[in-house]
Amino acid sequence: MSWQIARDDLPDLARGATLLGTGGGGDPYIGKMLVEQVLGEGSITILDPDELADDLFVIPTAQMGAPTVMVEKIPAGTEPSLSLRILEEHLDRRAEATMPIECGGINSMIPLIVAAETGLPVVDADGMGRAFPELSMETFAVYGVHGSPLALAGERGERVIIDTGDDDRQMEWLARAITIRLGGVGHIAEYAMTGADVRRTAVPRTLSMALALGRAIRVAREEHRSPFDAIAETLSSTLYCHMRTLFEGKVVDVDRRTTEGFAKGVARIVPVDGGDDELEIRFQNENLIALRNGELVAIVPDLICITESESAEPITTEGLRYGQRVRVLGISTPDLMRTPEALAAFGPSAFGLSERFVPVEELIPGEN
Amino acid sequence: MSWQIARDDLPDLARGATLLGTGGGGDPYIGKMLVEQVLGEGSITILDPDELADDLFVIPTAQMGAPTVMVEKIPAGTEPSLSLRILEEHLDRRAEATMPIECGGINSMIPLIVAAETGLPVVDADGMGRAFPELSMETFAVYGVHGSPLALAGERGERVIIDTGDDDRQMEWLARAITIRLGGVGHIAEYAMTGADVRRTAVPRTLSMALALGRAIRVAREEHRSPFDAIAETLSSTLYCHMRTLFEGKVVDVDRRTTEGFAKGVARIVPVDGGDDELEIRFQNENLIALRNGELVAIVPDLICITESESAEPITTEGLRYGQRVRVLGISTPDLMRTPEALAAFGPSAFGLSERFVPVEELIPGEN
Repeated sequence: MSWQIARDDLPDLARGATLLGTGGGGDPYIGKMLVEQVLGEGSITILDPDELADDLFVIPTAQMGAPTVMVEKIPAGTEPSLSLRILEEHLDRRAEATMPIECGGINSMIPLIVAAETGLPVVDADGMGRAFPELSMETFAVYGVHGSPLALAGERGERVIIDTGDDDRQMEWLARAITIRLGGVGHIAEYAMTGADVRRTAVPRTLSMALALGRAIRVAREEHRSPFDAIAETLSSTLYCHMRTLFEGKVVDVDRRTTEGFAKGVARIVPVDGGDDELEIRFQNENLIALRNGELVAIVPDLICITESESAEPITTEGLRYGQRVRVLGISTPDLMRTPEALAAFGPSAFGLSERFVPVEELIPGEN
Repeated sequence: MSWQIARDDLPDLARGATLLGTGGGGDPYIGKMLVEQVLGEGSITILDPDELADDLFVIPTAQMGAPTVMVEKIPAGTEPSLSLRILEEHLDRRAEATMPIECGGINSMIPLIVAAETGLPVVDADGMGRAFPELSMETFAVYGVHGSPLALAGERGERVIIDTGDDDRQMEWLARAITIRLGGVGHIAEYAMTGADVRRTAVPRTLSMALALGRAIRVAREEHRSPFDAIAETLSSTLYCHMRTLFEGKVVDVDRRTTEGFAKGVARIVPVDGGDDELEIRFQNENLIALRNGELVAIVPDLICITESESAEPITTEGLRYGQRVRVLGISTPDLMRTPEALAAFGPSAFGLSERFVPVEELIPGEN
């Protein structure tokens, strides 16, 4: 069933999208402000993927760049819709809906900016089921819908179209070069597809899940219940049904560099009350792997989420600071993100990690 | 009057284009082989700019990249025409002719490859009147025809369209990024214009001049006359009417790096028979400035051409070797390349040089 999203929903959506951003994906709070600006008192129609007409023409929209840059380089606001228009003109076909390519981070919000500006509905699905650093890391691509042609809009009205056929990694490679030269951020429309393609290739209902997670955390806080229990409860009825606490402690080291258009680095967390335990998290925009005392406890594409230890407020890579008290969560991803084809696209080896993917619910057995 | 170019003309054209390449522009001998391959025993129609219909639709074609890479990364041969087709599709208008953007180096040949493949004629004009390292350094741009939209084709069929409006430097900046990520070479179609635009903005008859120069050098050698006299004689009836010998000697030092998509460096030449004299030439793909014992003797956009001291064979930046016996020529450029607007686009300051432009015929007074 289609539903409406309005201004009051945006803070919850931003919070949930930050959790699903697993440290990356860019700060959705900036995106939220841009949506609010365009949306005003209106609302946006969200379409359930099961109800899309087979031939509905969907053009996903997103921002690409290093999250550390996105925080400082706020878009003018017109680029997301411009990227959609560029691709429409190139394909000589008007979009009937837009969609996130990435439900984590700012890219949960970019399609809403487009929707508010154009009146298009937004499909409740995405191609990452979380956040990933590269445009080729999409379930869309894994299951046969390719990113090309990609349209990219810059803040000074630059228009770029990139078509690398079915080579989505080459598309990422070229689009990243443009984004770097635009100052670190570009706005894109890509992975144009039909409603039938959405059902076949997308991770369903991730926008509504992000909203539900953000809302659950807020309501639990208001009702003085554990927000972590609220997260687990919300996830239990979704495709992301396993949640584990990987570690609790304080951040003692963050080594982060913005290089080649990415924020790369490592964070270390130790218990607040001392002791020899240590959690090491390595990230490339997003958190990729968590090692507890050198032992694997969670690994991409499962979600590794760093949150404030009391409020469960998710913390992005660029928000990590020495001394923060945190709880690190591991959350299982849906089966379509764990197939051999999916792992080839965005599993450990796609990030140069030598560790093999093991589901978080196997690494840490538990009840849910 | 239109004329025909055939296989037998290509060696002369390559030689003349290398001279006009002023050290850069890429090695036209590789381009020549590609033209020969496509052209066979056929011929290509060359159109005089004065005879173009006002509304003739011209799409120039070229290769971009570092000459040092171009020598090692030989194109498949289909990219130049692909770039033209991409731009035609994007503009929804078929080209009626192609044209060089740069008459020096390999870009004298690329439009001939396109012409041989497509049957289009080639306009006898270009936008640099020599070779320059950047796509924005065009008389086209100086006089109001902008490069966008630019179409770029890669060797694996990659298609890229870049539109930066009237900001040709931003177009160069983005296209260079793509070219670097394609391995250092890309094929482009850009500066689409009408016949009337050609007459208003292009340097006329540079293709025929390159051919005439190459032919004059060859014939002089065959007739045991001085090829340098032949060059001077050929130039005297063109818009490039002043030639000066800047230095004769041997190359004693070449410092060359391929960096950020360019071949940058410096060469030093001293007299063969010793003495304290020294010519220093700084280059960015092309030779930019010549200093004799620290005194300016020629500077961009005038041509600084290093040639073999006996045969007058032009030597490219990547062909410079320790010990070569050379004669360095300075050649004046046409007035439309020396206006304040032109100098702002491709004069000394456009290359970060602090020296002011002074015409070579004023720096070295002489009779022609």
